[in-house]
Amino acid sequence: MNASLPHFAADVIAQINAPEEKYREAAQRRLDSLTKPLGSLGVLEALAAQMYAITGGNLSLPLRRAAYVFAADHGVTEEAVSAYPREVTAQMVHNFLQGGAAINVLSKAHRVELTVVDVGVDAVFASAPGLVEAKVRRGSRNLLREPAMNHEELCAALEAGVKLAQSAQAKQQQMIAVGEMGIGNTTAASAITALLTGLPVAEVTGRGAGLDDAGRNAKIDVIGRAIERHFPSSGMKADPLEVLRCVGGLEIAAMTGFILGAARARIAIMLDGFISTSAAAVAYAMAPQMKDYLFAGHCSQEPGHQHLLRQLGLRPILSLDMRLGEGTGAVLAMPVLESSLRLFSEMATFSSAGVSTAAR
Amino acid sequence: MNASLPHFAADVIAQINAPEEKYREAAQRRLDSLTKPLGSLGVLEALAAQMYAITGGNLSLPLRRAAYVFAADHGVTEEAVSAYPREVTAQMVHNFLQGGAAINVLSKAHRVELTVVDVGVDAVFASAPGLVEAKVRRGSRNLLREPAMNHEELCAALEAGVKLAQSAQAKQQQMIAVGEMGIGNTTAASAITALLTGLPVAEVTGRGAGLDDAGRNAKIDVIGRAIERHFPSSGMKADPLEVLRCVGGLEIAAMTGFILGAARARIAIMLDGFISTSAAAVAYAMAPQMKDYLFAGHCSQEPGHQHLLRQLGLRPILSLDMRLGEGTGAVLAMPVLESSLRLFSEMATFSSAGVSTAAR
Repeated sequence: MNASLPHFAADVIAQINAPEEKYREAAQRRLDSLTKPLGSLGVLEALAAQMYAITGGNLSLPLRRAAYVFAADHGVTEEAVSAYPREVTAQMVHNFLQGGAAINVLSKAHRVELTVVDVGVDAVFASAPGLVEAKVRRGSRNLLREPAMNHEELCAALEAGVKLAQSAQAKQQQMIAVGEMGIGNTTAASAITALLTGLPVAEVTGRGAGLDDAGRNAKIDVIGRAIERHFPSSGMKADPLEVLRCVGGLEIAAMTGFILGAARARIAIMLDGFISTSAAAVAYAMAPQMKDYLFAGHCSQEPGHQHLLRQLGLRPILSLDMRLGEGTGAVLAMPVLESSLRLFSEMATFSSAGVSTAAR
Repeated sequence: MNASLPHFAADVIAQINAPEEKYREAAQRRLDSLTKPLGSLGVLEALAAQMYAITGGNLSLPLRRAAYVFAADHGVTEEAVSAYPREVTAQMVHNFLQGGAAINVLSKAHRVELTVVDVGVDAVFASAPGLVEAKVRRGSRNLLREPAMNHEELCAALEAGVKLAQSAQAKQQQMIAVGEMGIGNTTAASAITALLTGLPVAEVTGRGAGLDDAGRNAKIDVIGRAIERHFPSSGMKADPLEVLRCVGGLEIAAMTGFILGAARARIAIMLDGFISTSAAAVAYAMAPQMKDYLFAGHCSQEPGHQHLLRQLGLRPILSLDMRLGEGTGAVLAMPVLESSLRLFSEMATFSSAGVSTAAR
């Protein structure tokens, strides 16, 4: 545990207990009794067993599902690391509040309650249904020039996430999608990924929302120099909280707190793309016992994403070349996960249906 | 066109028209105007554009969705090619009618009307809601000893499928899942795949519902000998209808007719696993202009499946290591496809939402 870890975060981590293995085993025994060849539901069986363990054997369907979109701006957009102008973060928050974005459409289609969290957008929003105001600062600092957050800002963003997890628990939400919006945030996520995995920057840096080759090369250069500035002794294993503070972002820090808080509350966490997975990777580095609350909704086209998924030992439910963020891949995976639970709960067994089992 | 093609099938094929490209292009233009980075919905964009073209620009949501499970027994089960006894086909049909199978659970969860079609189960069923009686014979013949069907049986099975497609059209169904149940039918599908792709039998033959290594080797041997018997001059490109007759099965023939009839009726076809895709491969060989009515719901663990998908140029929507059949992978993919259409129809455009487009 690092000295700089704030007390509230240390408390959260201390209170996270991994799902109990005995429930996963019980789930697998039930799955093996259902009228299908052994193991023939493939990944769906693992999903159902994991979720059964998360609920401690108290599965009730339909799941109460929610999506949280954490939005913030990034100081590093001064360095021209994104195909889109910084203003788009605020414009997209307005779009979320008016119901026109992809995440609105998918949340509505799949009965998912949507909350937009302003952790640090460079704009002022009138209060609106579905909007949580938790602004720490109008954008993180430029991580190329200084740490993205000072200690107080980091703590405030983490705490905003923890509080939202408490609110999710109070609302009895059982599965949460973790999404984000923030022009410039793949730069932060790539920097986090390089530092947590030790991989070369170029290998974990992609085109974001649509950079060309020259733009991507400039982005790789910015990330490399930022890492050099904040973590000059690259041989040393960087402290995850310090990684988050120096090269992360306000929405990434809030997602990290949210994920830790959700794991404490035994809420299943559906990750979305590269950015939300980078927050999960920080949370995992701080509290490895939270891993089995995580599901990977999909694998995005950002090259760093699959490296993080491998590090976390997560197999993505969907692989549809999406790279939109907002929580879209997470919400789209929810019907698959819930289907696995329906099968687990509602299928007949060999004995109840009078079906013969395998002869050989 | 082969001389043995029955008139009704030749008529169906002559009446299939490919979806018009102009609708796909119009759909892509709309997708490019929506508030998201260009192309960032990945595969979902291609799915939406394909479906828009299938409907000729007349998309109405929700889609009317249905699943058809074609059931039949296989004479080749005399050769011990399956981990399960032949009786399981009939037992599982009872399970379908009682609502206890995986396909029942998924159809109910995803608002899909389920129909079970008895094309050749070795049992007699009382009439029941959701059951269509179209039995040609109580199981196909043993394809190791003689052709699986004679010409009349093949025509009867094909015609049963064509009639079901007409009924689907009369019910205004817009998307149909094609599934099956038949102990022994991966043996038939592997034989079809070897003959249509020219690949070695061992490469396209798997464990079916759960064979061990010895069982799989025996199955490979049976398939190899059957191909040798019916198509001794293996250098010659085999006629697809003759392949279907000699090494197929009653439910595979019915699915072939169903798929051709659905394409004629401009109904979108969601394939399930290896067996339904083998029927589609036969249909494609007979009428290549039907290809763009096909979607691949998932990629199963059967090794022949991915070879067929490649031959058909289909990318599976899901890859969850399922190998259950019944139409389960097809129905599970339907919410993903419908989500792509919701996004297409309901998202705001850059201009309507006042969001800036890419700067570089």
